[in-house]
Amino acid sequence: MLKILRCASYHFRSAGWSHITASLSTTSKYQSAATERRYIPRRAVLYVPGNDERKLQKIPSLAADCIVLDCEDGVALSMKEAARSKIRRVLHTQEIDFSGKDCSVRFNSVESGLCEGDMLEVLSAQHLPATVHLPKVDSPEHLTWFADRLKTTLATRTLEEKLRLVIFAESAESLLQLPEICRRGAELSQDSPFLLDAIVFGSDDFCADIGATRTNEARELLFARQYVVTVAKAFKLQAVDIVYIDYKDLEGLRKQSEEGAGMGFTGKQVIHPGQVPVVQTAFSPPPQKVEWAAALVEAFEQHQQEGKGAFTFRGHMIDMPLLLQARNILQLAAVTKK
Amino acid sequence: MLKILRCASYHFRSAGWSHITASLSTTSKYQSAATERRYIPRRAVLYVPGNDERKLQKIPSLAADCIVLDCEDGVALSMKEAARSKIRRVLHTQEIDFSGKDCSVRFNSVESGLCEGDMLEVLSAQHLPATVHLPKVDSPEHLTWFADRLKTTLATRTLEEKLRLVIFAESAESLLQLPEICRRGAELSQDSPFLLDAIVFGSDDFCADIGATRTNEARELLFARQYVVTVAKAFKLQAVDIVYIDYKDLEGLRKQSEEGAGMGFTGKQVIHPGQVPVVQTAFSPPPQKVEWAAALVEAFEQHQQEGKGAFTFRGHMIDMPLLLQARNILQLAAVTKK
Amino acid sequence: MLKILRCASYHFRSAGWSHITASLSTTSKYQSAATERRYIPRRAVLYVPGNDERKLQKIPSLAADCIVLDCEDGVALSMKEAARSKIRRVLHTQEIDFSGKDCSVRFNSVESGLCEGDMLEVLSAQHLPATVHLPKVDSPEHLTWFADRLKTTLATRTLEEKLRLVIFAESAESLLQLPEICRRGAELSQDSPFLLDAIVFGSDDFCADIGATRTNEARELLFARQYVVTVAKAFKLQAVDIVYIDYKDLEGLRKQSEEGAGMGFTGKQVIHPGQVPVVQTAFSPPPQKVEWAAALVEAFEQHQQEGKGAFTFRGHMIDMPLLLQARNILQLAAVTKK
Repeated sequence: MLKILRCASYHFRSAGWSHITASLSTTSKYQSAATERRYIPRRAVLYVPGNDERKLQKIPSLAADCIVLDCEDGVALSMKEAARSKIRRVLHTQEIDFSGKDCSVRFNSVESGLCEGDMLEVLSAQHLPATVHLPKVDSPEHLTWFADRLKTTLATRTLEEKLRLVIFAESAESLLQLPEICRRGAELSQDSPFLLDAIVFGSDDFCADIGATRTNEARELLFARQYVVTVAKAFKLQAVDIVYIDYKDLEGLRKQSEEGAGMGFTGKQVIHPGQVPVVQTAFSPPPQKVEWAAALVEAFEQHQQEGKGAFTFRGHMIDMPLLLQARNILQLAAVTKK
Repeated sequence: MLKILRCASYHFRSAGWSHITASLSTTSKYQSAATERRYIPRRAVLYVPGNDERKLQKIPSLAADCIVLDCEDGVALSMKEAARSKIRRVLHTQEIDFSGKDCSVRFNSVESGLCEGDMLEVLSAQHLPATVHLPKVDSPEHLTWFADRLKTTLATRTLEEKLRLVIFAESAESLLQLPEICRRGAELSQDSPFLLDAIVFGSDDFCADIGATRTNEARELLFARQYVVTVAKAFKLQAVDIVYIDYKDLEGLRKQSEEGAGMGFTGKQVIHPGQVPVVQTAFSPPPQKVEWAAALVEAFEQHQQEGKGAFTFRGHMIDMPLLLQARNILQLAAVTKK
Repeated sequence: MLKILRCASYHFRSAGWSHITASLSTTSKYQSAATERRYIPRRAVLYVPGNDERKLQKIPSLAADCIVLDCEDGVALSMKEAARSKIRRVLHTQEIDFSGKDCSVRFNSVESGLCEGDMLEVLSAQHLPATVHLPKVDSPEHLTWFADRLKTTLATRTLEEKLRLVIFAESAESLLQLPEICRRGAELSQDSPFLLDAIVFGSDDFCADIGATRTNEARELLFARQYVVTVAKAFKLQAVDIVYIDYKDLEGLRKQSEEGAGMGFTGKQVIHPGQVPVVQTAFSPPPQKVEWAAALVEAFEQHQQEGKGAFTFRGHMIDMPLLLQARNILQLAAVTKK
């Protein structure tokens, strides 16, 4: 009945905290993943060098939504083998408690020549990570290469759920090609062991690539950040914002986190456990939004029982995207509340 | 003679208040409308819900350049029929005085499933609106669909002048596809009952779509606003800026209006009649620009009489675009002066 | 040996002062210039009207990296012939000392109808300029036309080195088409007498085209400036920033220059010799960067002698782009030091 508000070629559209429904769209032009997918919150994304035993053991005490076991920038070249092997062990033995967290692994980039080795070792563990991160995706061809190797690597395994794929935009070229990269990612998601789920804006490498100098206010990155959000949301993906480098300055972090949330980012990279609470608060739905969502879902269920169709709620016509959005605010609120 | 400054594949280029000549370009690559078109000022764009009799009757007292009889967001779902029918009556009987204003109608979006019904009813009136607004244009296909239906709807009628078409960019997807949407719009303008004339940036729906939070300073929209202007001007279209929501804060409205005019927007959406004077002032050519234009046109006519060709005026070489621009500043000044 | 960090389809990537290595990339997807090219600094780009004898004679006393003998906007229509002929003479006789400066010529735009005449006259001089500037490049076709005419014009000559080509983006259309323009420029560079080397953002014409009003803070140009840098760097080109019009306000100039350098621009247009020192300082590598580069190059040579491969330096893995970058910081420091 609600369908009357949208025609056949319906595109996802929503209001307010729409980003938390980012991965739920069912008939977007770009993303044809046919079924509703579980929303994995990634408000704070924290990297743990795969070879750092001490930091690995601390994972259960970390509050970040998303823990990234890192093979890439956090690991020196001479430690690459050690990192792969430790990450494999952690996954294989499930010795570390990831409950309530997105357990993910960052491979080295396609162009590093190390990515295939990372995959072969890490993905031979008995248990797979929920999410894999692929840095420095500069062209759609990188994703094609990755999908191909991933398929081969996982050929003999049965997946309960597809791996979620998080890609990094961190060069001028990747920014220019981002819509094409996402289009390819969405196509490959249909027939690969992964579902493209998020874009991380890697601002340090990006600044290095374009010769920019990072400032705390980040005016030099305004276009790039807002463009990344726009592309991500056009493809119903999460968007993860830049690192705030001065990790002792929690007030500056709070400001930048709220600014990023206000721009439409769904989360932020952190480089220190001390940054997690500030960031997760900034990227959580505010209480009044949760109340709105609960009331809307209740009103909808009442209308359904009475056999009514489309209806208005607090002055807005309610269509399916708004309903999905409300449900997901509740889901995120439930998932993320302490 | 002035032609010497431009070769055959000449593109429109101008200076200063060029935006008011936006629709005059004759040989742009993108827009091949072959004849000079009347410039319809839309400094303040005010929506009037089509079903609100009281507000309809107030139209003659409104000072806004552009009055939009609304079928869409201003009208509850249960009132859609009433709005269509009242708008049809207003157009049919010409009972309301629109003199000096752009009389226009906003249909529901293509994807709403309501657009065709809106067209059939509204455009069956004896008199047609000068302009139609199409919201939520997310892809070139929307315009193709619209052109097709409009042609059918108006098949038996003879138009004195083509309908002007104003489209809304209000989602991440529409922003990414905006150049393609405008290209299609320009193509369709050649052979359809409409001429694409303006882009409105619908920031509330856009913010909802990308999960951004509106602020008065609107830093979160810098990229989107400046991109919309750039695309609009590349296609010689007017560009209509965001709503300033806090309608009691006229000083904040003035700042944002002047900022928008400074970015190249040609007008702004308003949500309250009290916003109109501030907005129309901000989007009017300043007196010194009018003086410049008058002097330039006079100098040109003198040169023409003396049989001279290209010439310089106050230190700048004068080419055809500058002349057109000057003429249109005078036209806008004449049209819009109290 | 360092190759292990990159696979075959390796793209250039670097850190910090990467922009000074802009033209060194050897295997970028976009730019297939197969050999390392000399870096020509263009920190301050100063135009000298080709017909202004007095200003021409002052060139040896100017400190700007890049002197542009102008046929275009700085020259009135009635003086075009005089400018061409004087510029030809200056090049032919080498009567003016350009030592340590990029000696370049700005032609009129393709669409002006004057460009071919400029080329025929100017490029008939015995000595050619190192660089040519082509303004108002609005489409890839402009570059194709230019390459074609340039080939014809230089058909009988043997070039020691290809001419460097600097193009101007100065309209809404050129901004939208900039990636395509650069792609065409890179393709044509393979088989033409020019190498595309830099993009200048011509903000005055751009503002005129989109109807924007220039301010000193230039917030109205944030998107356009950052987009130009992004495209330029994706194609490994230099990016030259806007003019600061208030030439007496050196403090404002300093701020805008540092902001531009911070965004990734490699240089800035100047309109007065008094602006040169401020600008060149802002676009020079800071001493700590020069120290870093010297130490890195030394460490690399040591590793090479010891037969070691990839290595880390001050906490970062060193790959070929970083090494090239370091070498070019040293080269720029050497070239530009007083």
